[in-house]
Amino acid sequence: MSYSIGIDIGGTNLRVAIVSKEGKIIESYKTENEVLKGASYNLDKLVNHIKTVWKDYEIEKVGVGAPGPLDLNIGRIINPPNLKGWENFNVAEYLNEKLKMPVKVNNDANVAGLAESLFGNAKECSSVFYITVSTGVGGALIMDGKIINGAHSQAAEIHNMIINEDKYSHSGLNKGGLEGQCSGVNIARIASEIYRRKINTKEVFEYYDDNDERAVKVIDDWINNISIGIANIITVIDPEVIVIGGAVLIYNPYLLPKIIECAKNKVSNTNVIDIRIAKMGDDAGLIGAAML
Amino acid sequence: MSYSIGIDIGGTNLRVAIVSKEGKIIESYKTENEVLKGASYNLDKLVNHIKTVWKDYEIEKVGVGAPGPLDLNIGRIINPPNLKGWENFNVAEYLNEKLKMPVKVNNDANVAGLAESLFGNAKECSSVFYITVSTGVGGALIMDGKIINGAHSQAAEIHNMIINEDKYSHSGLNKGGLEGQCSGVNIARIASEIYRRKINTKEVFEYYDDNDERAVKVIDDWINNISIGIANIITVIDPEVIVIGGAVLIYNPYLLPKIIECAKNKVSNTNVIDIRIAKMGDDAGLIGAAML
Repeated sequence: MSYSIGIDIGGTNLRVAIVSKEGKIIESYKTENEVLKGASYNLDKLVNHIKTVWKDYEIEKVGVGAPGPLDLNIGRIINPPNLKGWENFNVAEYLNEKLKMPVKVNNDANVAGLAESLFGNAKECSSVFYITVSTGVGGALIMDGKIINGAHSQAAEIHNMIINEDKYSHSGLNKGGLEGQCSGVNIARIASEIYRRKINTKEVFEYYDDNDERAVKVIDDWINNISIGIANIITVIDPEVIVIGGAVLIYNPYLLPKIIECAKNKVSNTNVIDIRIAKMGDDAGLIGAAML
Repeated sequence: MSYSIGIDIGGTNLRVAIVSKEGKIIESYKTENEVLKGASYNLDKLVNHIKTVWKDYEIEKVGVGAPGPLDLNIGRIINPPNLKGWENFNVAEYLNEKLKMPVKVNNDANVAGLAESLFGNAKECSSVFYITVSTGVGGALIMDGKIINGAHSQAAEIHNMIINEDKYSHSGLNKGGLEGQCSGVNIARIASEIYRRKINTKEVFEYYDDNDERAVKVIDDWINNISIGIANIITVIDPEVIVIGGAVLIYNPYLLPKIIECAKNKVSNTNVIDIRIAKMGDDAGLIGAAML
C-alpha cells in the first residue's frame, strides 16, 4: 500500500502527515516553526522525521501547503508576512532533492479547499468554491477534483475582490476589498471604531449573542458583505457548492442560515445558493496537501 | 467536407449560416424576426432555407445563440424581454425534429465569447473571459475551448455582479450591479441625470471627445466601474485573457488603454492584466453558435 506525505507550513508550527489515498491520516508529526532560522533548518526537521521514523512506509509523493504569495510553477515561497527568513526559498526543489520524490506546493487556502472537495462537506460535487474567513480571507476553486490556479496563479484570491470602493483599504489591498470588510481582524477593527475602544473578534461575537445593538450592526454588515462576495463569485463561475471554513464560521455556525438568506437576495436565481460549513477542521491543510 | 449550422436569434433579426470547421462563414441568410408571430413561425423560415437552398451541403449539427434566460439543459427559451411570444419554447427540440440533427443552444454572450476564443482576439488562449458592453452587459467564460455554463447555468452572468451596493438598481437586478453602472443604457441614464435632459450614449461620447467635463466624469466613472468588474473576475477565475466586445468599446477603442491602466491599479499583480478588444464583429454570434 502506498501513501502520500502532506506538509502544512504555518507561521507558528510545521506539520507533516502520512496520508492514505482515501484521505486518512495514518501518522502525523508537529514541530515548532523556528521561522527566523530559515527554511532549510526547519524543513530538515520534517525530512529527518520522514527518513527515520517513517522509513518503512511506501511513499509516492509529497504535497505542501504554505502561505502565499507563492510561485506555483516552481514551488517557491515569495514573501509571506509570517514567514520572515523563508523569502524566495524553493520548497519544492529542496524537498525533492532531500526526499527523492515528486513534490508539489500550493497555498494553504487551496489545499484546504481541495480537502473539503475530496473528503469534506463538498464530497461528490463537481465544482466547489471554498472560502476561508479567519484572521484573513482566502479562497479556493476546485473543479473536478483539481485546484484551479488560474492563468497567473491568482484564481480564488478573493481577499482583494472589491465590494464597495468607498470603504476601507486593508494592508495595501483594494479599497473596499473583501478582506478589509470581512476578515476576523477587520471585524475587530470595525467594532473597535464603533465601541471606541479596542475589542477583539471573540468579544464582538459575545456582544452579538447578548443582542448588543452595536455588535448586531457589525455582524449584520459582515453577513451582508460576505454575501456580496458569495453572490459575485456565483456571477463569475457559478460553482455547484460554496463551502465556508475558517474560525469565524466554525465557532459561529448559526451564522450560516443568515448568510444563505442574505445571499439569496443577491442572485437572479435562488437555486444557485448551496452554502455549507467546512467540516475537515485543522487537518484539512495536511490532507489536502497530500492530495496535490 | 462537413459543416455546421449557426443560428443567431435576435429580437429584430434571425440569422443563419453554414460555417466551416475553421470558423469561416460559407453562406448566410438573414430575415426579420416577426417576434409576435411566435417561435415556430419564425424558425420555419430558417428551416425552409436550410432544407431547400442548402440541401446539398453535408451538415453535421446545429448551434443556436439566443437571448437569455435559457434552460440550457434542454435548450428552452424562458422569458427574454425582447422575445415576447417565444416564451418557454424549446428551440433545441423543435429544430431537432425538423432538421433531424443534433441541436445545441446557448446564450448570445456565451456563443460570441466562444467565437472570440476559437477564432478571434483570444485564439490560442486556454482561458478567456469575454465581456460584452452594449445596451446591456454580458459575459462568457471559455476554458480549453469550451463554454463554462456553471453548475446552474449562471456562470459569467456578470451583469448582476455587485460593485457598490450603495448605487442604482437596474431592472430588478442587484443594487450597485455592473449592468446598472456600466451598460450603454445606463451610461445614458447617468449622463441624463448630470445634464438634466435626456441624452443618449452616442452623445455622451461626442461630449467626451469635446472634453466636456460632465461627460468626462461619466466616462471616467464608467472606466473605473468596468475595471472593478474586470478585477473582480480576476480574483475569482484569473483568466489568461479578457476580451471586451459590444458597441461601447468597438466604437470607442481608445478606451482600452485607459481600462488597462485603471484595472492594473486594482490587482495585486499587474501581470494578470491582458485585456483586448473583440474582433469578430457581428458574425461572432453565428460562428460561435456553429461551434457549440
